[in-house]
Order: sequence, then structure tokens, then C-alpha cells
Amino acid sequence: MLGRSAESAPGFPTRELALPRPRHGQGTAPCRPPAILSLLFLPGRHPSESHRGERQGRRSGPGGAGGAGPAGEAERARRGRRSGAGGGGGAGPAWEARPRRGGRAAPPCPGAAAERCTARRGARMGRTLVELFYDVISPYSWLAFEALCRYRHIWNIDLRFRPAFLGGIMQQTGNKPPAMLPKRGEYMLKDLKRMAKYYQVPVHMSPDAFQHIMGTSSLTAMRFITAIDMTNPQYLEPLSREFWIRFWSQHEDISQPESILAVAQQAGLSAELSQKALEMISSPTVKDRLKDTTAEVLKYGAFGMPAVVAHYDGEPHLFFGSDRLELLGSIIGEKWLGPVPSPKL
Amino acid sequence: MLGRSAESAPGFPTRELALPRPRHGQGTAPCRPPAILSLLFLPGRHPSESHRGERQGRRSGPGGAGGAGPAGEAERARRGRRSGAGGGGGAGPAWEARPRRGGRAAPPCPGAAAERCTARRGARMGRTLVELFYDVISPYSWLAFEALCRYRHIWNIDLRFRPAFLGGIMQQTGNKPPAMLPKRGEYMLKDLKRMAKYYQVPVHMSPDAFQHIMGTSSLTAMRFITAIDMTNPQYLEPLSREFWIRFWSQHEDISQPESILAVAQQAGLSAELSQKALEMISSPTVKDRLKDTTAEVLKYGAFGMPAVVAHYDGEPHLFFGSDRLELLGSIIGEKWLGPVPSPKL
Repeated sequence: MLGRSAESAPGFPTRELALPRPRHGQGTAPCRPPAILSLLFLPGRHPSESHRGERQGRRSGPGGAGGAGPAGEAERARRGRRSGAGGGGGAGPAWEARPRRGGRAAPPCPGAAAERCTARRGARMGRTLVELFYDVISPYSWLAFEALCRYRHIWNIDLRFRPAFLGGIMQQTGNKPPAMLPKRGEYMLKDLKRMAKYYQVPVHMSPDAFQHIMGTSSLTAMRFITAIDMTNPQYLEPLSREFWIRFWSQHEDISQPESILAVAQQAGLSAELSQKALEMISSPTVKDRLKDTTAEVLKYGAFGMPAVVAHYDGEPHLFFGSDRLELLGSIIGEKWLGPVPSPKL
Repeated sequence: MLGRSAESAPGFPTRELALPRPRHGQGTAPCRPPAILSLLFLPGRHPSESHRGERQGRRSGPGGAGGAGPAGEAERARRGRRSGAGGGGGAGPAWEARPRRGGRAAPPCPGAAAERCTARRGARMGRTLVELFYDVISPYSWLAFEALCRYRHIWNIDLRFRPAFLGGIMQQTGNKPPAMLPKRGEYMLKDLKRMAKYYQVPVHMSPDAFQHIMGTSSLTAMRFITAIDMTNPQYLEPLSREFWIRFWSQHEDISQPESILAVAQQAGLSAELSQKALEMISSPTVKDRLKDTTAEVLKYGAFGMPAVVAHYDGEPHLFFGSDRLELLGSIIGEKWLGPVPSPKL
């Protein structure tokens, strides 16, 4: 489903599993969510109707610096290869009228701001590493995921996605799903509806949403995601998003192999790659990697997800929930501009 | 300790208890927190050094509209009587260099913006009633309390304080204090430290903070606050704030009669008024009022505090926690400007 750049063409990995894992913020995965999202939130505006220059003008005003614009193709490609930001440039709802199939996605830096932008991206040493630990069974994790996807082009951060297993965290800490308290469950239903709308993330709640969670294990899905993370990390972001869409927008299964393969296809993985990843999920390598990531976030002090760990000033800072991104910004010296920020670069 | 306007001079109530309870947003209580707060956060700037015009210039720029300014005294008094905003004008940290003893506090509307401001305050019918249900044992309630105190001068809301009993809510819903989960307790300690700093509210956390909570009942304090709410609501705000300061800044007792009298004195209540309120706390009238308020917030779906209920579009909307004020704003059509907003009027 996703339009792919040359760098992210699927294929089985040539890298060894033991190679140092690249920072996902530096990967080549495009930050372009599926068309369904634009349809869900912008029904009058299909991606195919998009016109980047026009959009930028409307969003930022004539003199403003938007997230898309007519920067040179060569510069665009260079930036894309260097920072992985070429595919997912700009901020705001990532799916807002952005072309998905064919062609290159809009670059993050428009003409006038390109120099400043390039200089900023060049200063990688000064960037804050922000790790998002998540499980696709967690709807609040989706909110944090999308919001951080937007902010990685605005804040001076390297965003790293860390798939972990919520069931393991709950078991290890003795935590219980919050919705097990009936009043809290009722509230969460309303809260998620409102938050989803405000964050422009298509979580669709239903009265039986929590039964749906309780009856589903995300273990196989998170192992599959882990296998992809280890082998073809450029798919980590679209794959994770497609799992959330399937479970939280479409209310369909994500635990069975056929469901997982369908999700992978939506995320743009080839049948061959998906099949190989599916075979890997029962390997000790993948199982141990998921266990290790889960153990790591527990070590940071997590008791649920999403858990955001910002490495700042020589220390890890844990933030729990999708509602601490403003606080995260204040700690790392970046300004919160709401869940759907306008690009400033 | 609080500087008082003529309207809020202490004295035992002449109103009958059965009289309709005024909206607190319309009361005459000044929104001026104690000097200790300015000392805690602005050590280089004592309230007595304040210069409102200068401050406004620094905060809003020469052409900006600040929260304080040289509006006419008559207009100021009129507004103060009508909307209760005269004493607590402006936004930002309420205690920022604002005189506490003697004299009138800064008005909310500076010269140039006075007309617009007056027109807005005049449109009471269009204002959203926002109720804050709180217990002074809850530190997150304090964050919400102070943030809403700032926003009531920026958003088109009538803010009503609703003292309730957290113990009753927990018992009725089966909820447990979150810090009972060890990992969550560790996290909350850090979270509260960071949030307090970011919200500019002097919650001082200590490693034994949660034992401190568990070993303290707020029932007597909340009954005392309720008695004052029923008889002299102009003191509800400063009294509640002083309870938080005593418990969460100074780590002192708030359960014994002598502690409560000390708090009341700090809030500016006369010895006579405090003594009478203390005698009232065992009356069925006060007990029932606290029970009724607690039952009311339970009916709205609360399972903890703070609980904010916004009456908007013909419906009550419940928000749990101090971290949903941005969402609250989005629902009622008001913009979140961070926990310490600059005044826009």
C-alpha cells in the first residue's frame, strides 16, 4: 500500500542480525501512513487530489515555512538518505493529502528554510535520542507514536521505535489493565474517543473494545514486528501503524498468521519477506530480542505503555502515557505545539 | 496572609445555609496565592518589589495586552464585584510578583483591551461552566487547580470549585491509590516533581510522600473547606491553596484541629470565623454537603481526582487528571497555551 522510495524496496536482509541496530530515526522508512487515515479524517480530500505547494500555502501562509515545498530533487534525495526524513517530511497529520503511491514524498524543508534546516539536521550530535516503547495492543501507544512521528521533524530529536510486549510488563510489575476497574473503563472509552479525534489518529472505540483487548494476545504480532525490526527496520513504522489500524480502526484480528500477513501486505512488505519473518517468530533470536526490549523498558521503570525514554543531559527520563509529550518537550527544551503541530522548519 | 478587598472582609456569614450557592467564579475571592509561592519559584523577585506596568511590558511586549495594567480603579472595582475576577486578574503564575497584603490586586484587563475584555465578561450566557472536583490530599488536583485559576481569565469559562472527598470516591468505585503499585509509585514521584516545576506549582515530593498520604485522612480538612464553602465561599480558593501548601510544600499535618486553624489563618480567615467553621464540621449539614458533592462527581463517572466537569453543548463532559486540560480546551473551543499561559486579554 505504501509508496516506496528506492532505498526502502523490500527484500530479505543482507545485513547480519548481529550488526549494530541502526537508529530508526536515521532509517529510510517513509513516514507516510496509509490512505485509509486520510479518508477517515479528511473525507473531502483524497490523497490523489493533493497539491503540495497549494497545501503548504494554506497551512503556513505565503511567507511561512511549511513541511513541503519545491526543494530540489537532488537535495531532497540526499536528505532522505542521510536522515530518513525525506519520506516523512513536515509535520501535522502525516497522512494529510500526501501522495502514497509512486513518486517521492514531499521533503521536509522548503526552499527558503532549506539551509537552516540542513544545518540543523547536520547537528546530529546535539539531538536528543527519544525512544518510544510500545505494543500495538495499546491504543494510547498509537497516539504517542503518531504525535512523535510529527514532532521528529520539528523537535531536535532522533526518534527510535522500540517494540516491546505489554503483557510481559504487566506481569512483571503486577499492573492490571486500567479498564478492569469498571468506572475507569467507562471513562477510557470516552477519553480515547476524544483523544483520538483531537490527536487526529483514527482509533475507533466500541463498547466492547476492552473485551476485544482482553481476548487478544499481541505476542505473535510483537514478535513479527520484532523480526522486521531486526531485519528490515525500514518497515518498522508502517508495519506497526498497519497493526494499529487493523486492530483499532477496523476491529479485526491481529493474532493469527493470516491476519499478520495481511497487515504486512498493507505495510508494503513482499510476500517473501513476510513469510520469512513469520518463520522467524519462533526463533530464540526474535523471542530473546522482544524479551530484552521488554526487560529494558522495565529497567527504566515502566509499568505500562506507551513508555517514552528521552536520553537527555546524560540521563534517561521516563515518561508514561501519551499525555506527557508536552512535559517531555519542556525537559528537552522543545516547545509543545499541540498534537497536530504545524511545521516550523 | 492574603491581601483582602472590601468585598471579601471576613466575618461570620449573614446568608442562610439554604440559600442558593453562588458560582465560585462569580464570587469575590481574590486569585492571589500566598507569598511563599513567589518565594519558592521566583527567589529573585519578592512580591513587594512588584511593579505591574513594568511586568506587563516585559511579559507581553509594548503593544501586548497583559494581565495587569493601569485600568481605572472604578472600572476595576465594578468588574471585581461582577465577575470576581478583579482580585485574581491576569494569568500566568498567580503569585508572580503580585502584592498580597493591603491594596487592590492587579485588574485583569489593561487599558487598551479593557473594552473588549468588558464585553467578553459581559457575555456570561455564553460561558462554559467548568467544575473542578478536588481533594487537598491529591497533589495532581493542585496542579489542575492552579492551571484552571490561570485559564479562567483567558478562556471563556466560569470556574466552580467543588471540594469532595477522595476517600469516598476510592471506596465507592473500588479504586486504589495508584502509588500502591511500587513501580507506579516510583514513577509518580518523578512525574510529580517534573510536573510541579513545569506547572510552576510548589508541590515538593519526598520519597516518603505516599506513606505521608496513606497515613493522613483529609476528611476533617475537606469538611472544614466545605463549611467555608457553604458560609464564606470567598475564602474557598485561598483556603484550599493553603491546605495544599501545608501538606505538599511544607509536609505538615492537615488533619488535626490546630493544623486546620493554622491553615485558615494563613488563608486570611479571622479566628472567629475559623472557630465557627471548625464547630460546623460535625454537623449533618456539612457532612451531607460533602457527601452530596462526592456523590455528584461519582454520578459524572469519576473514579479519582482531580475530576473536571465541563458543561458544554447541553452535556457534562468529565475529564480525569491534571493532564486533560488541553483536551478540555479542544472540546470547549479554547486553546491550550501551556500550564503557565500569558494573558491574551
